[in-house]
Amino acid sequence: MNNFTFHIPTQVHFGVGQIKSLAGALKAHGATRVLLAFGGGSIKKYGAYDDVVRELNNAKLPFVELSGIQPNPRVESVRQGIALIRDNALDFILAVGGGSVIDCCKAIAAGAPYTSGDVMDLLTGKATAQSVVPLGTVLTLAATGSELNNGAVITAGEDHKKLVLFHPGIFPRFSILDPAYTATLPPNQTAAGAADILCHLMEQYFNPAPGTQVQDRMNEGLMRVVLDNAERALAEPDNLEVRANLLWASSMALAGLQLMLGKPMLGFPIHFLGHELSSLNDMTHGVSLALLTPAWMHLVMREAPQNIAPLAAFARNVMDVTEADDLAAAEQGIVRLEDWYKRINMPANLRATGIAEDKLSHLAEKVMEGREPFGPLLPINADRAETIYREAF
Amino acid sequence: MNNFTFHIPTQVHFGVGQIKSLAGALKAHGATRVLLAFGGGSIKKYGAYDDVVRELNNAKLPFVELSGIQPNPRVESVRQGIALIRDNALDFILAVGGGSVIDCCKAIAAGAPYTSGDVMDLLTGKATAQSVVPLGTVLTLAATGSELNNGAVITAGEDHKKLVLFHPGIFPRFSILDPAYTATLPPNQTAAGAADILCHLMEQYFNPAPGTQVQDRMNEGLMRVVLDNAERALAEPDNLEVRANLLWASSMALAGLQLMLGKPMLGFPIHFLGHELSSLNDMTHGVSLALLTPAWMHLVMREAPQNIAPLAAFARNVMDVTEADDLAAAEQGIVRLEDWYKRINMPANLRATGIAEDKLSHLAEKVMEGREPFGPLLPINADRAETIYREAF
Repeated sequence: MNNFTFHIPTQVHFGVGQIKSLAGALKAHGATRVLLAFGGGSIKKYGAYDDVVRELNNAKLPFVELSGIQPNPRVESVRQGIALIRDNALDFILAVGGGSVIDCCKAIAAGAPYTSGDVMDLLTGKATAQSVVPLGTVLTLAATGSELNNGAVITAGEDHKKLVLFHPGIFPRFSILDPAYTATLPPNQTAAGAADILCHLMEQYFNPAPGTQVQDRMNEGLMRVVLDNAERALAEPDNLEVRANLLWASSMALAGLQLMLGKPMLGFPIHFLGHELSSLNDMTHGVSLALLTPAWMHLVMREAPQNIAPLAAFARNVMDVTEADDLAAAEQGIVRLEDWYKRINMPANLRATGIAEDKLSHLAEKVMEGREPFGPLLPINADRAETIYREAF
Repeated sequence: MNNFTFHIPTQVHFGVGQIKSLAGALKAHGATRVLLAFGGGSIKKYGAYDDVVRELNNAKLPFVELSGIQPNPRVESVRQGIALIRDNALDFILAVGGGSVIDCCKAIAAGAPYTSGDVMDLLTGKATAQSVVPLGTVLTLAATGSELNNGAVITAGEDHKKLVLFHPGIFPRFSILDPAYTATLPPNQTAAGAADILCHLMEQYFNPAPGTQVQDRMNEGLMRVVLDNAERALAEPDNLEVRANLLWASSMALAGLQLMLGKPMLGFPIHFLGHELSSLNDMTHGVSLALLTPAWMHLVMREAPQNIAPLAAFARNVMDVTEADDLAAAEQGIVRLEDWYKRINMPANLRATGIAEDKLSHLAEKVMEGREPFGPLLPINADRAETIYREAF
């Protein structure tokens, strides 16, 4: 096990009606002029926007809006937010939405005080932020985990490169998590969110290290929560206990990266491969992960059968497979996982999402750009990446 | 599920050799003159004391010592620490040891700035601390969980009353967790520590609420870690991976009280009952819990069979019991739990610890002093308390 440091400084306010904590939380963190950031129109449609604006007005806190932050948020939105902060002398950022809005706001938080160059310097690691604008979040989607950690993913360039920012200052100061906000999601977003949470958990679980039983046993428990509650959320969308289970599982899956503590950072291979699909045709992030996970697992079984203990453990400890042989257990685990994806209505394969077969080798080249072979159990190179895309096709 | 707030502001430095983070952590939190608090001589015997003093000296941080803090720390030690802080104008408290030292230091932290009365005002709830002296910890024992939360238990009076202090300011600013420090523990302390961790987990698990699957599935995982690693720690005391699993499980069991989030606060009945045994003859805390837990479970099964779903879930999800009937499953779970206590060499019963049978009704009266019937599943009153003590005898 590697040594580690850990904390979760973000103050969570969890539960129905917790929006009433917003004004107090903003004032406790010194907010006097707020950037209110959100995505498309859904927060206006479903009431979160009205709730937030009412609280800001009651607290007599002036605010400026940044709207239209897209899924797979782009550096152009980040620059827009930075300009709004500078032009209006804003001192706090409030992200209302899901992972895209929160990640965009984290980059704005780091970029606004960085005046010696463009925010791309921070996203590419050329420079490190010396100070940040504090931010808070009101979450409307169970998926990202970004509300309780200090990482962000931003898309840049014509080739839609995904850039990762980590900085201790971009932990949200507070996050308001109301399961009722997630109950208005369309079913396909609920399902894709659940697939995303599960993949966050699997990518950490399939990265084994000695002395990390706490991390892995907690992870197994969280995977069971996601598997148990996703179908129920589709069947009973208004069941707030079910929504609470999914929402808190999404946060705990990446809170302070607690399930990765003590493990080597080798990259999240399924996420890396999935990001290319999102770049190519804006495929929903969780859908891309659901399509690629079984293919990645099969490749590990074929090419690194000596390393499949965590796949067999997943099958037995999470999927209740009882096979004694590791390979047979792992295979049965994948079968049950694929059944679950079907039950939550994920597409059957890449072909069904409209991806053209002749793009697959290009995707495999692109995922390697600027990267060494990546991921635990079996390092993924361009050949292996193409094999995975082809199996998922 | 109840609404909740949550954070874990304590900065954890986990791993072998993390004592090298001490000077930096102290300076980051503004320490200039330190109260160095510890218990008996074990930290001097096993090296933690020398490591800490070396780091303090290297950092040129002057310090004053408070030594001899006893298990079940008394308010007299708290007052002694408060006097040392005031007399020497100290501005940081460093607790080196286990739960008793940390809890004592938390009460000192709250009590030192409270000059309008005695610290008992804070411990009895007559007053609330308006400011605290910051504290940090160097943990030497896997058991308490106090290193990652904001609670403390202090013993006061001739009748050894246990008083509980909660305050947001007494979260340690940092906690240094080095599994190597726990490897020098005598076997009986390792075992009692494991029994304590398991009981912290069980008391939270046996307090069910709707919508808390995340808390309960993580809890099951942590219980498995304790059960799997305690025997290994006794068989291979120097195995640092095993020690790391136990140590991190002890912290996660009570970190920010994360496994209690959303649940009603009804008290920890086994802890309440066990505290009276510790008061009577200074019985090791973890031993008292191991002796009382099966008796409490049996009483719940007899008197509240309609409420035993969590006991059956414990049997099935943690102890791998396969009985279909809830009562039969719960009973088999207790059998396996008792087997585990035997394997880690807990005493067979209260009689074996030297408690006199004629004290039992007195203990049952004492546990009710100042309390309404307490605990989830089955409220414990004096009669039921006596029944539990008698079954454990």
